[in-house]
Amino acid sequence: MTPAPQWVKDLKPSGPQGSELLSAERAKSNISVEKLSNLLHTKEILERQDRLLKILQADKVFDKSQNYFDGRVDKFKTALARAKRLRQLQIKHNWSHDEYVAANDLVSEPGPYGLHASMYLTTLRDQGTPEQHKLFLEPAENYKAIGCYAQTELGHGSNVRGLETTATWNPEDKTFVLHSPHLTASKWWIGSMGRTANHAVVMAQLIINGRPYGPHPFVCQIRDMKTHLPLDGIHVGDIGPKFGYNTMDNGFLLLNKVKIPHVNMLARFSSVDPATGKYLKPSSPSLIYGTLTWVRSTIVLQSGGVLARGVTIATRYAAVRRQFQDRDAPAGSKGEDQVLNYTMVQYRLLPLLAATFALHFTGKAMMALYQDNQKMIMAAANPADSKRGAGPEQTHSGSDLLADLHATSCGLKALGSTTAAEGLEVCRRACGGHGYSSFGGIGAWYADYLPTTTWEGDNYMLTQQVARYLLKSARSVLKGNAPDNDTTRIFNTFLQKQDMGAAHDVLGSDTDLVAAFAWRTSFLTFEALKHRDVEKNSWNSLLVDFWRLSTAHSQYLVVKNFHDALQSESLRSEVDPETLDVLHKLFRLHALNTLEKEASEFYSSAAVTVRQIQLARTKAVMKLLEEVRPHALRLVDAWSFPDWQLDSSLGRKDGKVYEDLFHRASELNPLNGLTIDPYPDNDVLVKNDETAKFKSKL
Amino acid sequence: MTPAPQWVKDLKPSGPQGSELLSAERAKSNISVEKLSNLLHTKEILERQDRLLKILQADKVFDKSQNYFDGRVDKFKTALARAKRLRQLQIKHNWSHDEYVAANDLVSEPGPYGLHASMYLTTLRDQGTPEQHKLFLEPAENYKAIGCYAQTELGHGSNVRGLETTATWNPEDKTFVLHSPHLTASKWWIGSMGRTANHAVVMAQLIINGRPYGPHPFVCQIRDMKTHLPLDGIHVGDIGPKFGYNTMDNGFLLLNKVKIPHVNMLARFSSVDPATGKYLKPSSPSLIYGTLTWVRSTIVLQSGGVLARGVTIATRYAAVRRQFQDRDAPAGSKGEDQVLNYTMVQYRLLPLLAATFALHFTGKAMMALYQDNQKMIMAAANPADSKRGAGPEQTHSGSDLLADLHATSCGLKALGSTTAAEGLEVCRRACGGHGYSSFGGIGAWYADYLPTTTWEGDNYMLTQQVARYLLKSARSVLKGNAPDNDTTRIFNTFLQKQDMGAAHDVLGSDTDLVAAFAWRTSFLTFEALKHRDVEKNSWNSLLVDFWRLSTAHSQYLVVKNFHDALQSESLRSEVDPETLDVLHKLFRLHALNTLEKEASEFYSSAAVTVRQIQLARTKAVMKLLEEVRPHALRLVDAWSFPDWQLDSSLGRKDGKVYEDLFHRASELNPLNGLTIDPYPDNDVLVKNDETAKFKSKL
Repeated sequence: MTPAPQWVKDLKPSGPQGSELLSAERAKSNISVEKLSNLLHTKEILERQDRLLKILQADKVFDKSQNYFDGRVDKFKTALARAKRLRQLQIKHNWSHDEYVAANDLVSEPGPYGLHASMYLTTLRDQGTPEQHKLFLEPAENYKAIGCYAQTELGHGSNVRGLETTATWNPEDKTFVLHSPHLTASKWWIGSMGRTANHAVVMAQLIINGRPYGPHPFVCQIRDMKTHLPLDGIHVGDIGPKFGYNTMDNGFLLLNKVKIPHVNMLARFSSVDPATGKYLKPSSPSLIYGTLTWVRSTIVLQSGGVLARGVTIATRYAAVRRQFQDRDAPAGSKGEDQVLNYTMVQYRLLPLLAATFALHFTGKAMMALYQDNQKMIMAAANPADSKRGAGPEQTHSGSDLLADLHATSCGLKALGSTTAAEGLEVCRRACGGHGYSSFGGIGAWYADYLPTTTWEGDNYMLTQQVARYLLKSARSVLKGNAPDNDTTRIFNTFLQKQDMGAAHDVLGSDTDLVAAFAWRTSFLTFEALKHRDVEKNSWNSLLVDFWRLSTAHSQYLVVKNFHDALQSESLRSEVDPETLDVLHKLFRLHALNTLEKEASEFYSSAAVTVRQIQLARTKAVMKLLEEVRPHALRLVDAWSFPDWQLDSSLGRKDGKVYEDLFHRASELNPLNGLTIDPYPDNDVLVKNDETAKFKSKL
Repeated sequence: MTPAPQWVKDLKPSGPQGSELLSAERAKSNISVEKLSNLLHTKEILERQDRLLKILQADKVFDKSQNYFDGRVDKFKTALARAKRLRQLQIKHNWSHDEYVAANDLVSEPGPYGLHASMYLTTLRDQGTPEQHKLFLEPAENYKAIGCYAQTELGHGSNVRGLETTATWNPEDKTFVLHSPHLTASKWWIGSMGRTANHAVVMAQLIINGRPYGPHPFVCQIRDMKTHLPLDGIHVGDIGPKFGYNTMDNGFLLLNKVKIPHVNMLARFSSVDPATGKYLKPSSPSLIYGTLTWVRSTIVLQSGGVLARGVTIATRYAAVRRQFQDRDAPAGSKGEDQVLNYTMVQYRLLPLLAATFALHFTGKAMMALYQDNQKMIMAAANPADSKRGAGPEQTHSGSDLLADLHATSCGLKALGSTTAAEGLEVCRRACGGHGYSSFGGIGAWYADYLPTTTWEGDNYMLTQQVARYLLKSARSVLKGNAPDNDTTRIFNTFLQKQDMGAAHDVLGSDTDLVAAFAWRTSFLTFEALKHRDVEKNSWNSLLVDFWRLSTAHSQYLVVKNFHDALQSESLRSEVDPETLDVLHKLFRLHALNTLEKEASEFYSSAAVTVRQIQLARTKAVMKLLEEVRPHALRLVDAWSFPDWQLDSSLGRKDGKVYEDLFHRASELNPLNGLTIDPYPDNDVLVKNDETAKFKSKL
């Protein structure tokens, strides 16, 4: 590639400049970006972000300029170098775990230590005995041993009971033999296993005396600590490239009668008595149950921020990008219109902007609920009580709360991650052609996020858990022995008013708007209950109904939580009235837009009249779009993503979209180091290959 | 990577084997795959596919085993080698253009000659004079010159009128000066320009005597024919990596006062008199208008097949993959259920299977309509008539037909490509975790297809064209001066029955089902007309309504065309009664599922009663899923994708899913050639790097 000549360097985009357009946008609104940002993140976290950002940006290994160009092998090498440096920086700066995670978020790629730092350490900590902590956890915490968590198998995903890998107790020498009886038993998708880990927690079916005891965790060394080559009887490697997540080495593992000592079975909850070979039943699995709920709650909370990255990029670019004139523009008017002025673009983007806040406040509420409940459970749990499954059953109210929290976290995890994933793709397309460029920054982020819809419970599978809980609650309400909670309250309200009908005033009253969502959930629950209990339909035949029901219930929870957040004193004291007014408009936009998208269920449940939904669509939503639009730029600014994190030409805070796209294509793109021979009758491909120079310049 | 030891090679998946499961699936149905395949493709095309496939598979350059692993630069080099070989094979085997395209489809990647072989040659052919054919077209057809078509600019996508590049007529030396006045004038996204082309057709604003005449096409050499380096005043290169399409070198181009001779302005339709500098107006732009319609019709026809690739992969894998037991399964029953048995999976996949046929038959009908109309237009067109814009206006009926065809092609292009793109992603997710692996084969295909939703008219922009046409038709119906066509007929029917209401019997009658879709289109049209003509709402405020209207109209056309196809004698004579019955079920599934998904518009237009829609959902659709399910495997087999084309572990015709996933990960994956040092306190990354070996083995 010949370097750009001077006449190219002298070129500017035609006016008005992106920076001018964004300044003008920001001037349209008076809401305080700083206050809103503090509300979302807290001041402390924002300051921490600035501090970490400076450290990372100063380090050459975190230079992002070749991220979008690298192939799989280079991507992985770079990610490994960054993972090592992050760990070094953690020690140097004495970062807490939260700070380490925040630094990772700024780097914004899944790294090869990812599953070591999360699942491996957590599992050892939670499920190991003090002896095992000394033996396995300590070296792992000091990165003397690098581990991963090996559960999923080639032929077995969500259904843990179906795992094929076996761990057979051998009373003679007090060992377990780990074995993969079939190809489908190969561990698969195991993060950090492909190239990085030398240890794994392997979930395997425990077998004693020929009798199976279900899946249990075993620590197994898989690679030599010095040579890093696989040990005998171990076939391990990377499972290959994926739609995203290619900085991570998801791996496979086959075990051929690998012997491990008795101490390698993680024994805090259940164990095998080495003397007698007797199986000791697990105590207090509620703690694990709680962990899953915590992980799902985290996903809910993150989903708002995940989506906000895409919305930030698309909204900023829609304010810079101009195309066509308004068809009704007076004759002779000049220049093209900002894309953000088109109602079709507003209709695609602004409800997603509203959803980022809705999901964020819902996630906050979930986490608070989780922490309250966790305290209660911890107090009630008695580790000495070894009755299997005792945890969730131990006290009536504790059980109810946990069941409610479990169902809520399942439904909201599914709704939140689906909304974020699909919303990101809407944002990408709303950027038009340039959204397809890697430099847009949404595509890779979306591709890396997609697995969230599958892991920690497939989003479709999870909806069955929600339906099961709602059906159970409905049965208890009908029987009159229901606990008092929000779910049973909305069911009771529905049953009382069912005959009269509802006709909620969704346009005039916020509480009616929330109540309409509660009504729809209740209606669908009792419909499903009739199908199951009265008509005796098979569970399988009702899966689609259950999915609808779970979605409806989760949408109700999001609308309700958003509404509650806006009523809270703490929020009202943090932001000025104008910001509060805009947040209220976002609440109404989110709720009415959802109602309109799901209109048929609101019709058929008689929650709302046909006329009200028509008005919601043609008048209310369109009016709210117009009202929110002037604040769009400040609202995305409040999410406070540093440009370095977004790594997007289109989403630059300064609006220099075209300069940045051009710079990356013309100056950073290795393919431009390749001069080819274009003629088909000549088998020679390349006249000159200087692609490597782009990499070595860094 | 140590090679797999013998104990690994001896492993098989746990039973039942994928091959057994697929055989059992195929045995559940008696429909003739061969007859259905002939109906879709014709016997001749299928034989051609076999013939081409053998030639390609025998050639090492088309080996696909490293496709999913390569980075951008390697991807491009391989694609260039393949493009050259395809051209060599075309000459060797004397392939027609259709055969060349079919071979390309089997290779299944966008190649560096893509835009040369399509848009560059077509533009020269259609818009060049005989002199220009001799000068530019002949060397291009012989690949002595490689070209591209440079329209889109960095700051200008859909709006061609807004292009910034100028071509200024210079009367002194009878030349044009091509110039990029701003950075945003840089040509961008130009396929085959980045590294491959040495010529470009540049769309630029013609300026004579300081007066602008709008965008016109100019041939411009951009690289040296020998060195392949950019010529003076030219800054050209590749725009960088994209979400997909990375085998193609989409390029940018800046021009600094580049002088080209008079003959380089393509002059068949409009030109500049070299003697006087007078602008000669275009004649018969209807031909170009026709080309756009043809391109869009092709996209509609292809959308069925594009989607069918994803549906084939997901359906086959859903028959091999087993997970959980049915909750209502009798106690003690063993083994897990095929995922395809779950209604939630059926509900996601089988309506898409129905859509592949619906789109295919619609595309066929579109192409037939196009060809009929084209004949008529060609007969009516008089190239000597130089009145600007004369083409579409020239005869009343010709104009009406063309307007109808134009609107139809716009709406169906938007609906077809959106359905295919979004459907592919549904298929990918329906494959669960393994759908995320590149070896699944859907991800890359989806990513490469995505730009279709943007090019040849952005799918949202196009809906305005449809709405404009429908509003115009509605006005003419109200005035009583409407031409007689399907659109005006359904409007008249609606106006006659509007007061009585409709209450179509969508469950009992196919014609009523089609009529319900027509009713909804008509209702939305007259609503929009009222908003625009009576309430005088701005065009911009109605864009969302127009998008809904266009979608509704296009869905009506697809349902109608599917229905018509099933009534046609030619179809009925080609397939046996059982196949016809299944196709009829697919028609009903497609129509009722669409109706249910769009239920609120069917409610609010009073096309169907609430009760009917509830029944459609809970009874009819679920029953149709159950009835179609036994035929699913044979139906996807009928699409006849060779395994080599699909390049998917999950979609293998023989069901050897797990063997293939494992083989690719363990034997073909270059990352497994990398042995790393895992410890963070050691800056060394790699102990041993044998990744290059994987490539060189080929």
